[in-house]
Amino acid sequence: MTGHKVLLIGAGGVGTIVAYGIHLAGNSELSIVVRRDFAKVNDVGYNIDSIDYGIVEGWKPENIYPSVAAAASSGTVYQYVIITTKNLPDIAKVEELAEPVITPGVTVVVLIQNGFDLCRPFFDKYPKNVVISGITYVGSHNSGGSVHQTQPDRSFFGSGRNPYIPEDLQESKVKEFLSIYSNGRNKPVYITNEREYRYKKLIYNAAMNTSCALAGVDTGRLELSGALDAVAIPAMREIIAIAKADGINLPNDCINNAIHGDDGDWFEPSMLIDVKKGNPIELEVILGNVLRVAEELNVKTPCLSLLYGLLKAVQFRLRENQGHFTLPIDRPISERFYK
Amino acid sequence: MTGHKVLLIGAGGVGTIVAYGIHLAGNSELSIVVRRDFAKVNDVGYNIDSIDYGIVEGWKPENIYPSVAAAASSGTVYQYVIITTKNLPDIAKVEELAEPVITPGVTVVVLIQNGFDLCRPFFDKYPKNVVISGITYVGSHNSGGSVHQTQPDRSFFGSGRNPYIPEDLQESKVKEFLSIYSNGRNKPVYITNEREYRYKKLIYNAAMNTSCALAGVDTGRLELSGALDAVAIPAMREIIAIAKADGINLPNDCINNAIHGDDGDWFEPSMLIDVKKGNPIELEVILGNVLRVAEELNVKTPCLSLLYGLLKAVQFRLRENQGHFTLPIDRPISERFYK
Repeated sequence: MTGHKVLLIGAGGVGTIVAYGIHLAGNSELSIVVRRDFAKVNDVGYNIDSIDYGIVEGWKPENIYPSVAAAASSGTVYQYVIITTKNLPDIAKVEELAEPVITPGVTVVVLIQNGFDLCRPFFDKYPKNVVISGITYVGSHNSGGSVHQTQPDRSFFGSGRNPYIPEDLQESKVKEFLSIYSNGRNKPVYITNEREYRYKKLIYNAAMNTSCALAGVDTGRLELSGALDAVAIPAMREIIAIAKADGINLPNDCINNAIHGDDGDWFEPSMLIDVKKGNPIELEVILGNVLRVAEELNVKTPCLSLLYGLLKAVQFRLRENQGHFTLPIDRPISERFYK
Repeated sequence: MTGHKVLLIGAGGVGTIVAYGIHLAGNSELSIVVRRDFAKVNDVGYNIDSIDYGIVEGWKPENIYPSVAAAASSGTVYQYVIITTKNLPDIAKVEELAEPVITPGVTVVVLIQNGFDLCRPFFDKYPKNVVISGITYVGSHNSGGSVHQTQPDRSFFGSGRNPYIPEDLQESKVKEFLSIYSNGRNKPVYITNEREYRYKKLIYNAAMNTSCALAGVDTGRLELSGALDAVAIPAMREIIAIAKADGINLPNDCINNAIHGDDGDWFEPSMLIDVKKGNPIELEVILGNVLRVAEELNVKTPCLSLLYGLLKAVQFRLRENQGHFTLPIDRPISERFYK
């Protein structure tokens, strides 16, 4: 097998569908990093039940590695490194996780992750590398190597706009990546405005996903309890204001699209599911990053900032429960004094 | 036994200590309503382990009733009805619960409950009755008739200021109640500014208690995670602003007193405990009432309103889980449309 050397890190629900899509396209030598399910996947491959690709049994890519270090030690210079892990910079920075497999000035990084302003840390660390920003609406879940894709792979790819290298080079890499990924059954779309797509997705994720996670309710109960109107809609308007200050006029129907996206379903968004499972939440990329941009642009964000403050305490609890730190038995007495 | 006919409704952790204090004072014929623990208490009485009163075994008041209706059917005209239940107007209104035992123009109602602006519904329903507002800092827990009082009974009693009857009559009833309650070991205090005490207690309850309940953390973790500064302190400042517009200047140290009240303890406030136990929260009296006053006084409350909106969704979930209502299997599709 010849072709582009492609490594995908994080072959869970979304990652496996991306990997299989690249495999079907047939233009790459595909490797993947699978951590939790390595033993099983390495042994029997993936079983996929996909709305795009049908039933696939025992699928394996060319190479399967249990870690990024193992993928690096093969000696391969990867032309593309696709990252489909969760993005949790307050726990492990993605740009550091991928460091062993990124060749400066060569490797194109493709970030298919939730959140906003994800490329910035890569430009700081790898100023000569192209980073492609991938926004996906695929619905897919992985359970120990059995992947169930329930919603078609609708994905949008654009240049992350590295300020240190020519934009036309970056655009050409986006187009090349689409040729690696398109297989006639998925429909990845080339875009030149990834930031607008990121903002649009934040309308849902920064406002509804966060509110549901805090209140412990799905989007239907958020609406029926009045919290959609009292909390999420004002938060959405703050995202629209930040985007506007950032030079992006979000379309008029963006709020409606967000609130009607789950019509008919008592839908539990990702952050709520993480909280219920006791997993860390993607708080920094969903709220922290956009709040830093709001501050740079002098946009007031009373709702989003309060949601962020409360979710920081939730994250603190989730991280403590996962053993990331241990507190003393006696609570330290604070020196703080307020007037 | 002669003396004032006193009925106490809600003999849990706080209520039992109040009842026992009245018993020791010896100026009343005391009846209590005990619902959940009636059978046991009626049989063997209370076992009390009290920082104020020591060990007391098998204590019973003159009369024990399993319901307000039973207390009413005794035919007694109660001179005092003390209410120490939780106050959950969105589930059951206290002024309706107590109706069978309130004689218009006669019965003095004593509300020893958490929250703010508790007397207003009584004045609307019983315009000729005195209502005494009791603010207590007692720490006491009841477990099936075994009561453990860990913090001394510090209580403050003032007129609720019924606008329909003379204030001097109300003040004299407060003083009379203190003579019924004081026993030389507890120290109930006569106050003429109950609203200020209610506001002071809201500094803690409307800001820290609510934030802890939403984030699922104790007050220590609220502080360490940054949410005390990001959420609770701004919410406290809104309470101070509402009080000020209401003509009450809260003391300079009120924020410090609130945040240092739990020094050294990983303390879980009441609303957090309710959420963890799946019990409804005292949301309306802790936040709803003060927000209605803020609106009347045109005070902006971005933090408190957002906390309220999120906690409405939490209350919705808690009430649904307790079977207060049932939702359809398919989520109804909303007609709402936002621009």
